[in-house]
Amino acid sequence: MTSHAVLGWCAGALLAIASASATAASPPVPPVVYPRLSEESAACNECHREQTPAIVRQWGDSGHFRANVGCYECHASSPSSPGSFAHNGFTVHVIVTPNDCARCHEQEAAEFRASRHARAAEILGSQDNVLAEVVEGNTAFLGGSALLASGCRQCHGSTVRVGTDGRPTPDTWPNTGMGRINLDGSRGSCAACHQRHTFSAAQARVPDTCGKCHLGPDHPQKEIYEESKHGISYAASAQRINIDRPKWVVGEDYSVGPTCATCHMSAASGRKATHNVGERISWNNRPEVSLRADLADLKLGLPDPIPWEKRRAAMKDVCQACHAPAFVEGFYTQYDALVALYAEKFGVPGKAIVEALKKGGLAGDTQFAQKIDWTWFELWHHEGRRARHGAAMQGPDYTHWHGLYEVAKAFYSEFIPEAQALVAKGLAAGGEKAAAAGKVGTLIDATLAGDDHRWYLGRMTPEEKAERARQREEFNRRYVTKSDPQR
Amino acid sequence: MTSHAVLGWCAGALLAIASASATAASPPVPPVVYPRLSEESAACNECHREQTPAIVRQWGDSGHFRANVGCYECHASSPSSPGSFAHNGFTVHVIVTPNDCARCHEQEAAEFRASRHARAAEILGSQDNVLAEVVEGNTAFLGGSALLASGCRQCHGSTVRVGTDGRPTPDTWPNTGMGRINLDGSRGSCAACHQRHTFSAAQARVPDTCGKCHLGPDHPQKEIYEESKHGISYAASAQRINIDRPKWVVGEDYSVGPTCATCHMSAASGRKATHNVGERISWNNRPEVSLRADLADLKLGLPDPIPWEKRRAAMKDVCQACHAPAFVEGFYTQYDALVALYAEKFGVPGKAIVEALKKGGLAGDTQFAQKIDWTWFELWHHEGRRARHGAAMQGPDYTHWHGLYEVAKAFYSEFIPEAQALVAKGLAAGGEKAAAAGKVGTLIDATLAGDDHRWYLGRMTPEEKAERARQREEFNRRYVTKSDPQR
Amino acid sequence: MTSHAVLGWCAGALLAIASASATAASPPVPPVVYPRLSEESAACNECHREQTPAIVRQWGDSGHFRANVGCYECHASSPSSPGSFAHNGFTVHVIVTPNDCARCHEQEAAEFRASRHARAAEILGSQDNVLAEVVEGNTAFLGGSALLASGCRQCHGSTVRVGTDGRPTPDTWPNTGMGRINLDGSRGSCAACHQRHTFSAAQARVPDTCGKCHLGPDHPQKEIYEESKHGISYAASAQRINIDRPKWVVGEDYSVGPTCATCHMSAASGRKATHNVGERISWNNRPEVSLRADLADLKLGLPDPIPWEKRRAAMKDVCQACHAPAFVEGFYTQYDALVALYAEKFGVPGKAIVEALKKGGLAGDTQFAQKIDWTWFELWHHEGRRARHGAAMQGPDYTHWHGLYEVAKAFYSEFIPEAQALVAKGLAAGGEKAAAAGKVGTLIDATLAGDDHRWYLGRMTPEEKAERARQREEFNRRYVTKSDPQR
Repeated sequence: MTSHAVLGWCAGALLAIASASATAASPPVPPVVYPRLSEESAACNECHREQTPAIVRQWGDSGHFRANVGCYECHASSPSSPGSFAHNGFTVHVIVTPNDCARCHEQEAAEFRASRHARAAEILGSQDNVLAEVVEGNTAFLGGSALLASGCRQCHGSTVRVGTDGRPTPDTWPNTGMGRINLDGSRGSCAACHQRHTFSAAQARVPDTCGKCHLGPDHPQKEIYEESKHGISYAASAQRINIDRPKWVVGEDYSVGPTCATCHMSAASGRKATHNVGERISWNNRPEVSLRADLADLKLGLPDPIPWEKRRAAMKDVCQACHAPAFVEGFYTQYDALVALYAEKFGVPGKAIVEALKKGGLAGDTQFAQKIDWTWFELWHHEGRRARHGAAMQGPDYTHWHGLYEVAKAFYSEFIPEAQALVAKGLAAGGEKAAAAGKVGTLIDATLAGDDHRWYLGRMTPEEKAERARQREEFNRRYVTKSDPQR
Repeated sequence: MTSHAVLGWCAGALLAIASASATAASPPVPPVVYPRLSEESAACNECHREQTPAIVRQWGDSGHFRANVGCYECHASSPSSPGSFAHNGFTVHVIVTPNDCARCHEQEAAEFRASRHARAAEILGSQDNVLAEVVEGNTAFLGGSALLASGCRQCHGSTVRVGTDGRPTPDTWPNTGMGRINLDGSRGSCAACHQRHTFSAAQARVPDTCGKCHLGPDHPQKEIYEESKHGISYAASAQRINIDRPKWVVGEDYSVGPTCATCHMSAASGRKATHNVGERISWNNRPEVSLRADLADLKLGLPDPIPWEKRRAAMKDVCQACHAPAFVEGFYTQYDALVALYAEKFGVPGKAIVEALKKGGLAGDTQFAQKIDWTWFELWHHEGRRARHGAAMQGPDYTHWHGLYEVAKAFYSEFIPEAQALVAKGLAAGGEKAAAAGKVGTLIDATLAGDDHRWYLGRMTPEEKAERARQREEFNRRYVTKSDPQR
Repeated sequence: MTSHAVLGWCAGALLAIASASATAASPPVPPVVYPRLSEESAACNECHREQTPAIVRQWGDSGHFRANVGCYECHASSPSSPGSFAHNGFTVHVIVTPNDCARCHEQEAAEFRASRHARAAEILGSQDNVLAEVVEGNTAFLGGSALLASGCRQCHGSTVRVGTDGRPTPDTWPNTGMGRINLDGSRGSCAACHQRHTFSAAQARVPDTCGKCHLGPDHPQKEIYEESKHGISYAASAQRINIDRPKWVVGEDYSVGPTCATCHMSAASGRKATHNVGERISWNNRPEVSLRADLADLKLGLPDPIPWEKRRAAMKDVCQACHAPAFVEGFYTQYDALVALYAEKFGVPGKAIVEALKKGGLAGDTQFAQKIDWTWFELWHHEGRRARHGAAMQGPDYTHWHGLYEVAKAFYSEFIPEAQALVAKGLAAGGEKAAAAGKVGTLIDATLAGDDHRWYLGRMTPEEKAERARQREEFNRRYVTKSDPQR
């Protein structure tokens, strides 16, 4: 490392501390500016502008270029550092880690370290890893599952290893997963959002960047956002939200087109930007039954999590840039009610039935070797989450059609019949199994006899039946024509 | 209400009438311009620019700002008006309704009132309400289903109620559903499309705005549009269609990138813009079997619907900005043929079988308590619509893979076997059920023996079989390799 | 044809040859420039600017306008030419074919002719045509299936026919399918990508244009791209990639936001643009088990296909504009490993089981009349492709959740049980069927007993079981709370 670089890093650290105490309203100061490009970085450019021209051009458009932060300032390494290698007279590493970035951007790195994002690689667990490693995978790719490399770890992050050549092994890199566990022990990849060599804040603020991972059957946040009023506003006004501005405060620098970053990370009047993406999230909708966000963080081993009430208050601060308090309160009342509906009607009783089946030895002990394992997994992990996320972010199609509609369909037309079939099989087996099956059968019957489910047994009250008949009649009058349906 | 406001509203009404008679080609005149911002609105701004800064900035970018139409001009209320409340010395209502907007924009409000959009809250019926209220929901949220608030009503509209505090209850608001039934008896929410405080025409013209509701498994119009040549053109040229222009006539103000609004609502040479979104739609593809649009409107209680032939002629006027007549005729021939194929092969016979099963007491009388209820519902309500909408808007993937492919798969691999199983169960039950089951069995057999379905029974003619064998042979020669499949 | 036009076409041919030898770095020369608009085209405009105003405006914004290439230069025909008709004193054809375009753009037409795109109409075969013609369709639309016109052929291309009026029949046109077989015997439709009358290169470069066909359950390339880092970069920087430039070389004219065209068709340093879209593709992931691209081309009848190794090298040239060699090698290692995993664990054994069932007469001989036909078809044609395409284009959600997760779920919870049920049915039938069933049963058992599948039989080793238990325990500690699930 040259003395130039060391000097710069110290200056950077000081400036980073300075900027950490700036208010949301003051324009951010670049954390470090070098007087000129280092000789080492100039040497890198000499070849790379021919060999990888777009990388050099990306850098040329970046804030790093303007601050004389070049290739060497980030890729410099020492020979004793794992993953370092000699390269045309320099010692470099290919993977830049949060530790490297933190030399200038310490505040952001610290916020990130306190977030669930930093633990993304550790979230791969239990069912998910069985799926990837055993059910979908095998051990043919350097002893592990090829699916991990091209699938799971591209979002969650790999645990980087080096091969005998001292370079990252291809099963662990290329990888920019959010929770990557790096050779220097740090967690994360800043390039997950600030991708490649533009290191752009604007890139991290567009919703598509979050959609790299937050999409799909199990948590379609991107799709929900696109359906929501927020996403619609962005679609109509992406060119007018000054997304390139260093200072980017909603209500000051833009007033339409909120992106994911606006609500979850960026500054609002009286509220600072944060790299802890959970700082304003009050429900964790991941598990079978939603948890308050602080409890979920605690279980993940995050130290000293922010209480959920403070997180909700923080989000409300942001909401109120655009929405009056009654609107915000009303929204949260609706959202909480939907979380409760899912839990009470499907999440809690479904979980109880599955646990009773497993405990009674009625549903096998190899996960995913029985149909009901898939049914229940999708019910909560895919469909039940979609309903809750849909309500959280105002995408009604996801709350209903992709959400509770699918939950209810799976519950009544698959889950309950499959559970009843396992009970019947258990009863037929006699002995201990029959005893266990009897108990589960009683549990299922009690569940279905409750107010939430008795319609399924045909036990609506006469009043309820009359109301349904009245509605059906009115509906049919409008839509159904007996003769000549196509006119 | 101040005299200033009253004066403005009268002027607005006059100007609205004047603008109603303007031709499509003449640039629209703002319906009302006040000489200055009212004192009341100035007082609102005083606080709100601090409290809800983005709202005030949105308004500051709006046409309303330029016309001195401020907070008070729209939110003013009288103490006797339901939902009104005292607020810092003023009487206001939080929900602005089409009646409020119509004081200046009467023509648009009248067109909207004549449209299906205005009846969106009443379309929630029969199966859909059973789903939301009974199957998916319960009564834990102020006596109703939390799903209604976060799901159905966010598109269809709530029936707004006020609580004991005189404010809208959280189960009915926040809500900007298209057919919202307001406290003043009006139907609709102009903010469904002209959202928040920019009141922007451009916002309403972007396809994403329509995609707030017109997406998803049951009517993926947004997705179909995005696949279509129309959507592709928009994706490549959204910046070049002058979407912000007050006058926005296809062929005059832009010639590429048609949006939903272009074809369904906006002006073309010799055709005026309309807020009746059904004015150019000739098929209603909602039911099991498509209906002509005027018949469907009649059933919904819309007075004096426009004949479907006139609607089709109106759409053709728009098509011909970009397409010669032979192209347009050819398209409609293809579309009608697809609607007929779906109806003849699947819609009509499927409906007959379901009705016979229900009439014979063979399929239960609690909707959605049997698997076949879900199967048939998705077949027509999701898959059959996707096929028809795909053909309507030229998204071949939706016509085929998401459409008729799914219809056929469900029909042959689920619907028919499930119906046959119910027949078998009925026959086994003996008595009246057996008699009914015999009749349904005969109906199913006759259906399958027809030309559309006999392939399923293995009854292709020798010529047909030879043709299939020839095609399979040719295909296999191209694609299948016996040895060393990965080379 | 006027002498003016003939002269122009000859000049065009010469210029096209000249431009063919230009290097990627030199700005392209328009292949032909007429000194003035022909009298014939001027006459066309006279009416069409009133009748179809947007077409004329599109043309007015085009390079063709600037080169005085008007309506007549492309639509002129001779009376003996099929599909030609008299139109206000001129003989014209409505469908412009690659032969017409090739008069000025010979190089592009030749590249296209050598590509799979040119054979897209012939790819419709076997299962797909049975689906469209027999399973989903009937013969009610001019003797064929309405689904072909609105579905399959809109991407694959129709075989254009003319009716007794000499005009294209509506079952074969409007159509701009990629492999359209034209009346002049040529294959293709340049308007598939360069749509309508702007004839724009930029239009063909936006990813949405490819997404007209490359989307959906069977090959969601557009969706995968949108999730990928490449698509995310485009979403953030579409306005900064100079997509309108005639010369468009990655690393020279832009350095972020690669589109489909960037990697598959457009120029990079030292690599020319091509209209052969397969020139850089090394795997063909279409079939049950992936094939090397040259072998796949050979089977499609394409003469003298480029070896797959050369194609991969060509793609790597493009990758290296933005990525260092180790990154590119690592990516390909990951991709190849995923292709191998799918093949070894699911593709090869699944195919063997299906073929054994069919050969033994155990699964019917009418395709799609048995459930297992749908199960297996979706397993490889939809889900298995998604996994492979996801890995190819770095969309982890498609590799895993939409891909191998769905493959595994279908394999274990549907395909194997359905195959076992057919075996059981065959055994019960006795005779030859029972003998055949015995053999298939043995094959299934052997497959399941292998290392990739024995977990399903509960035959994990004690070490494997302990590892799973450990992971599940750790996971549960983080996520599952016994009491007060909602806190």
